Amino acid sequence: MTSTANSVNAAILGASGYTGAELVRLLAHHPSVEMRLLTADRAAGRTMAEVFPHLGHVSLPPLVKIEDADFSDIDVAFCGLPHGTTHEVAAALPERVRIVDLSPDFRLFDVPTYEKWYGAHKAPALQGGAVYGLTELARAAVAKARLIANPGCYPTSSILPLVPLIEAGQVEEEGIIIDSKSGVSGAGRAAKEASLYGEVAEGIHAYGVASHRHAPEIEQELSRAAGRSVLVTFTPHLMPMSRGILSTIYVRLRGGADADALRRTLAGRYAGEPFVRVVPEGVLPATRHVRGSNFCLIGVFRDRLPGRAIVISVIDNLVKGASGQAVQNMNVQFGLPETAALTQEPLFP
Amino acid sequence: MTSTANSVNAAILGASGYTGAELVRLLAHHPSVEMRLLTADRAAGRTMAEVFPHLGHVSLPPLVKIEDADFSDIDVAFCGLPHGTTHEVAAALPERVRIVDLSPDFRLFDVPTYEKWYGAHKAPALQGGAVYGLTELARAAVAKARLIANPGCYPTSSILPLVPLIEAGQVEEEGIIIDSKSGVSGAGRAAKEASLYGEVAEGIHAYGVASHRHAPEIEQELSRAAGRSVLVTFTPHLMPMSRGILSTIYVRLRGGADADALRRTLAGRYAGEPFVRVVPEGVLPATRHVRGSNFCLIGVFRDRLPGRAIVISVIDNLVKGASGQAVQNMNVQFGLPETAALTQEPLFP
Amino acid sequence: MTSTANSVNAAILGASGYTGAELVRLLAHHPSVEMRLLTADRAAGRTMAEVFPHLGHVSLPPLVKIEDADFSDIDVAFCGLPHGTTHEVAAALPERVRIVDLSPDFRLFDVPTYEKWYGAHKAPALQGGAVYGLTELARAAVAKARLIANPGCYPTSSILPLVPLIEAGQVEEEGIIIDSKSGVSGAGRAAKEASLYGEVAEGIHAYGVASHRHAPEIEQELSRAAGRSVLVTFTPHLMPMSRGILSTIYVRLRGGADADALRRTLAGRYAGEPFVRVVPEGVLPATRHVRGSNFCLIGVFRDRLPGRAIVISVIDNLVKGASGQAVQNMNVQFGLPETAALTQEPLFP
Amino acid sequence: MTSTANSVNAAILGASGYTGAELVRLLAHHPSVEMRLLTADRAAGRTMAEVFPHLGHVSLPPLVKIEDADFSDIDVAFCGLPHGTTHEVAAALPERVRIVDLSPDFRLFDVPTYEKWYGAHKAPALQGGAVYGLTELARAAVAKARLIANPGCYPTSSILPLVPLIEAGQVEEEGIIIDSKSGVSGAGRAAKEASLYGEVAEGIHAYGVASHRHAPEIEQELSRAAGRSVLVTFTPHLMPMSRGILSTIYVRLRGGADADALRRTLAGRYAGEPFVRVVPEGVLPATRHVRGSNFCLIGVFRDRLPGRAIVISVIDNLVKGASGQAVQNMNVQFGLPETAALTQEPLFP
Repeated sequence: MTSTANSVNAAILGASGYTGAELVRLLAHHPSVEMRLLTADRAAGRTMAEVFPHLGHVSLPPLVKIEDADFSDIDVAFCGLPHGTTHEVAAALPERVRIVDLSPDFRLFDVPTYEKWYGAHKAPALQGGAVYGLTELARAAVAKARLIANPGCYPTSSILPLVPLIEAGQVEEEGIIIDSKSGVSGAGRAAKEASLYGEVAEGIHAYGVASHRHAPEIEQELSRAAGRSVLVTFTPHLMPMSRGILSTIYVRLRGGADADALRRTLAGRYAGEPFVRVVPEGVLPATRHVRGSNFCLIGVFRDRLPGRAIVISVIDNLVKGASGQAVQNMNVQFGLPETAALTQEPLFP
Repeated sequence: MTSTANSVNAAILGASGYTGAELVRLLAHHPSVEMRLLTADRAAGRTMAEVFPHLGHVSLPPLVKIEDADFSDIDVAFCGLPHGTTHEVAAALPERVRIVDLSPDFRLFDVPTYEKWYGAHKAPALQGGAVYGLTELARAAVAKARLIANPGCYPTSSILPLVPLIEAGQVEEEGIIIDSKSGVSGAGRAAKEASLYGEVAEGIHAYGVASHRHAPEIEQELSRAAGRSVLVTFTPHLMPMSRGILSTIYVRLRGGADADALRRTLAGRYAGEPFVRVVPEGVLPATRHVRGSNFCLIGVFRDRLPGRAIVISVIDNLVKGASGQAVQNMNVQFGLPETAALTQEPLFP
Repeated sequence: MTSTANSVNAAILGASGYTGAELVRLLAHHPSVEMRLLTADRAAGRTMAEVFPHLGHVSLPPLVKIEDADFSDIDVAFCGLPHGTTHEVAAALPERVRIVDLSPDFRLFDVPTYEKWYGAHKAPALQGGAVYGLTELARAAVAKARLIANPGCYPTSSILPLVPLIEAGQVEEEGIIIDSKSGVSGAGRAAKEASLYGEVAEGIHAYGVASHRHAPEIEQELSRAAGRSVLVTFTPHLMPMSRGILSTIYVRLRGGADADALRRTLAGRYAGEPFVRVVPEGVLPATRHVRGSNFCLIGVFRDRLPGRAIVISVIDNLVKGASGQAVQNMNVQFGLPETAALTQEPLFP
Repeated sequence: MTSTANSVNAAILGASGYTGAELVRLLAHHPSVEMRLLTADRAAGRTMAEVFPHLGHVSLPPLVKIEDADFSDIDVAFCGLPHGTTHEVAAALPERVRIVDLSPDFRLFDVPTYEKWYGAHKAPALQGGAVYGLTELARAAVAKARLIANPGCYPTSSILPLVPLIEAGQVEEEGIIIDSKSGVSGAGRAAKEASLYGEVAEGIHAYGVASHRHAPEIEQELSRAAGRSVLVTFTPHLMPMSRGILSTIYVRLRGGADADALRRTLAGRYAGEPFVRVVPEGVLPATRHVRGSNFCLIGVFRDRLPGRAIVISVIDNLVKGASGQAVQNMNVQFGLPETAALTQEPLFP
């Protein structure tokens, strides 16, 4: 059976992780998408209701192993598989199936760079046709692409504010510092000591200092905007919240720009966007303002030091930083309303 | 201007509290409701975007003082005012306006009992026409009522599982023990030392032991079901979560019933209900399974002691325990689909 | 080398878990104890500073495998091993070495009962000489015992308030209900999905309903006090805090007793105790009042139902519920001041 | 009555706040200090046991109003009063009484700078004799001073790592960026909406961006080290933890230094210090490693960008960032062992 004119048949590969559950949460109310296929590895044979009781009332197919999956009526596959495993899966999918890949497997377009950070690239032939799916910055390309490399969470929070400023020539490309604070769901649902409640609650620490794999991803997109190679200082921190990323970005001003000019540039760039909002002067973006939603809020602040400014962005790492943006990209790919299934308000408190 | 055939015009009185914000979150996507009037006391003159930045993108009227409010085109007023203040407000509303009161002002139908627990009742004339709005148990009456007393959060979590069991004669009416654990939002957004992060995080304590105002409310509804006066042991606890109530209810069995019989009774009673789900044997209801949603999950467990069973229920105190149930009641009052604006999935993690 | 007259040489078996770290935290400042031997399984070969950086400044021996351990100068072994593994370890220790076992391996004195709940008992010969080490209730026996079965966390919080009341004949032995709320460290440092931050934060659920292994342990001690077999209803809950247990205990009164009489009984029983405090009427025990300390606070509350009372106790599960009580027992065993190394104040906020 | 040769009689002014409670927690076990006088404003007439039940077992004088306080036998006054109120209190104390002021009232030595940030300085005559009490950097002066301006929490976490590096000429003085993350207790126990559990849990936001009062305090000490005026970029963030500050500090290298050189400089500078520890390469300082203790941990990291390094420091804001450092300073002032009452291990988990 194939999809009807009004319906897109979706597969979720790797449905037993947090991003898989989040896709189900969102797609359950998508007027034009039907979830036809869910795969999982260790959880195969179980139902989503067992793996994620909060979704127990949603009518869903059972979890099957990917090798047992039937893609014959699938229009789009969301891939939420561990990095390094999507290359071969994607290569084996019927040509007709569009792919939104939430893993990093297709995000770095320079294969040697990919291999330096992640190991062997097993589908270089597909890489050329991929599009880096930061929707607001690549909408036209997304619409035409078969394969979307859905951006990482830290990169989404960093690239959205920085690219328009670089393109406007208002910030120095050298010396940008991105200090990010993330909730724990970014590490997934794998049972790791470092993700235990007792290790995370009531504390904070940096990790991957100057060595996190999202740095080259950020640099790739900033370099594209700058027209030349750009390196950034990027420090992620793990803190006690389930969802959310706040990035505090320190920039040096260029060409006479000040904080107000930066804010105007961003406000102009994102004026028509449903999900990106530049907050007024003095308003402090907080992760709780976007929790559970596909929003990105951006604030710009004057620094006391002349020639500098501070840009702060917040997203929900599981929504705009993962599954929400994946749905947004799929909507664009299939010519559906871009906000379909993504209009939930943030949940606060 | 009056409402059109397709639209209910709503006022939210006391919109600057958590229940007010929650009403806005839900009603923002209600296909048949328009929020025309928002009142606040200290926050009057400000916008909801200032008071609750997470709702900054929702188009809303400004906050006005209740004495400056224009009710001429309002069809329904949601009252989220402090207890003791709704009597006079309700009495002054145009007869045409229906009322869903989230305060306890109209929940206790015996006026002397109300006055013992809360102080003077200033609108006894309205009390007789009020309906205690636990929707699943009072749907027909809700549909006809002008004034709905929206149940308290602890009572909702207790009455939903207990009334069918009492009506079925399967549990002893004497000696029911309700041990409830609540998130902090139940205390509202008022700046109180006891609600500070430092006082709540990483700890738990009981409060209002054998003296909480929700006990008489629970007892009123259980007594109605039993056809005689029932007292309960009720102990609320405050714990570090923003949303959620879990009630662990200890009952003695009657008439040869066992845990399975109780589960069957509840499953039968709530079989057609969109928001109440009785979980299968062995499944443990958790507050995170209902966070942000209007669901109530109920589990029944065999005790090791013969003649006893344990019933566990979970709700989101701000949704099914307050604003969600208020919208549900309003839907019933106005003949709208009961699930309108209430189909959001739980947010987890 | 053997210990000097003034010094007790201690081994900590299973030092890489939370109870091991807690023993180190406490013993680091014990005036009469030297930590000479630390064992770990997977962490063998590493230092405690690597496994627990917060103890990085404490001078300690490296972690060795238990089979490589040298017990020749050890006076006391604290065993923090997984259940089922201590029997054989204890049996192999030199007779001279006293043992404080934090596992459940020697807590149930009826071997068939042990085997029903835990599996084969591999050292029944040692069981007879063991003492259930709830220090306040067994001080004289602890002083003489070689082998102390250090009580479980839930049992400590339940037995301390209940035994004096049963002994005084003031509560019915049948129908006692213990509703306990625990922090996550009770589950140890093992990497389990159920202990992940995202699964625990901002939520609560019951587990092991009517089937938790601490029930028979509680029943053993209550039965001993009652002089006959007593069963209890016991429901543990997991909630978002790293440390702490609060037990809300529902009792029926006997012999004309009321809540005040219960409070007097407990206050009298624990009058001289350094670690157990019965709080005045109206004071609500909270886990944050004991965090990091060896205290147990107990409050007694009148119920609204005649003939019933509510008793609430709080402890830090890692201190009085595990490592602190272990040190307390060791102090008694060796004739040291009972409060040595246990005088830290609670940490709040 | 005056103090004996062996005992220092202490007053705690403003004992009902978190820093007051923390002073009591620490001083309760100080072998040479007796707490003779506790003052509070609104809580006067109550006991500390009522205000802070976790200290209920500590024998303490009752809380009195400051105007009713008897300073006749007091040797040292710890002032934990709101800013702007200590000037006059300090000026009125008997000359004999030494003062450790935890407020910012005497931290800025340039009176116009103070007045720009805080308002009128009401005791400029005392300012000249004050010492900025970052103990490790001012030990000799502290020993001789009557009046110690105890450093702020953010400044402590910033100045300790930066001053040795500036003095060594290894970092550029211009363009230092300090991105700090703080627990909530830094805002005190005042009942403020922004400190409510529901507003803080599960989220993060920046505040006081480029306008926080701790910036001039940091700049004062860095300028002193540099021998010229230094400005810094400083962004504090509020996150869900009760205690702790982590500061991520971005520096540009000078004079051929690299990260290893910086680490060596700091390790050398703090080699003999009991409370400051420079962690080995690759170890990530975490606030949970210092919770409840007077430690400051510092790590240095190579940046991927040439010419830059990242320095990370952690403290417990209530201990090394407030009350612990106050006790440390008092120890130095009175010639007591500097670690007296400050040897508690961190509490983890």
